[in-house]
Amino acid sequence: MTAPTSADLLALDRAAQDLLFRAARTANTFTDEPVTDAQVAAIHDLIRYGPTAYNGQPLRVLLLRSPESRARLLPYVSSSNRAKTASAPLVAVLAADVDFHERLPELYPHRPQARDWLADRAARVEQARFSATLQIGYLIVGVRAAGLAAGPMAGFDTAGVQREFFPDGRHEVLLLLNLGHPGPHIGPTRLPRLATGEVIRTLDA
Amino acid sequence: MTAPTSADLLALDRAAQDLLFRAARTANTFTDEPVTDAQVAAIHDLIRYGPTAYNGQPLRVLLLRSPESRARLLPYVSSSNRAKTASAPLVAVLAADVDFHERLPELYPHRPQARDWLADRAARVEQARFSATLQIGYLIVGVRAAGLAAGPMAGFDTAGVQREFFPDGRHEVLLLLNLGHPGPHIGPTRLPRLATGEVIRTLDA
Repeated sequence: MTAPTSADLLALDRAAQDLLFRAARTANTFTDEPVTDAQVAAIHDLIRYGPTAYNGQPLRVLLLRSPESRARLLPYVSSSNRAKTASAPLVAVLAADVDFHERLPELYPHRPQARDWLADRAARVEQARFSATLQIGYLIVGVRAAGLAAGPMAGFDTAGVQREFFPDGRHEVLLLLNLGHPGPHIGPTRLPRLATGEVIRTLDA
Repeated sequence: MTAPTSADLLALDRAAQDLLFRAARTANTFTDEPVTDAQVAAIHDLIRYGPTAYNGQPLRVLLLRSPESRARLLPYVSSSNRAKTASAPLVAVLAADVDFHERLPELYPHRPQARDWLADRAARVEQARFSATLQIGYLIVGVRAAGLAAGPMAGFDTAGVQREFFPDGRHEVLLLLNLGHPGPHIGPTRLPRLATGEVIRTLDA
């Protein structure tokens, strides 16, 4: 008989908790097993239901699978990230569509005027970055939901990747994400996490 | 016999997929049933394992439960969000700790010099906002994992809330989040989502 823990207070079963959060790790090596287009579509078909401001869904994903496409990325990646980026079965460039508001009459039909509220580009960039980053959070959970490991990487030349892959000027590159089946983990074991009392407090009055 | 769908390609079981994404909705009314501190701690104990840059974990959460604390918030909330903010069992103010780097020698012990890489405040604010927003994505998933509904709200006076609740100048307020058991849904049914082909493309070369 085991004492009840905080995990027992959740509606999500323990195996799913482990799959998505507790046992999941940011992978830094991968096996050769491919990530299929069908798996990617299944991940998106799940996480696209996550909420975004005005239901704007600004996240856009560019998949680099071929050696040629990967070779275009590597010069912009920091040296510490280069080996895993070269060897991951799939690399995703994650960006925000700054002109996501053009779709709002269709995506937010009960308030089609929302498009006009976002006429100012600077405010829209901030909204696009914020909602797309929320969606990256959902995406990392979704990759794990597919039984895969995600390897988010912030160490790269953002402006360079933007010029190389999104020269249209309407996208802001946010993150690179390696995807695959995890290989042996290199480096430190699970890093420490802040305690609830360090993160959450209740205002008394 | 049912034809296999994309949901069958995921390792996460269908009930969990529904709980976290497919059946989950952004709640705009709530029942009176409270959200307990133990539930909040259980949610955090799950989602704190989500990855952040440098393992920095900059998200900070201020819970408003008492009528007095709620009354301090309401003047800053847009009129369309006021009723649900007043009636939600719990409201969380979600912010990024801009000085999260002070903890890096402990949270990122294999590269304690990461603290110094983040000496520049402007770069650090961007990092803090980005990682805390990822964590809000995990948090929304975690609230649903607890069997609760989340109601994220971007319509409020950010600067005002920051002055009122985080006058220390080291936090950036990002979002308000109502939490509770959902009541009857008011407003449109599930809003349309972009198709995978509109969001994800593969670079051919």
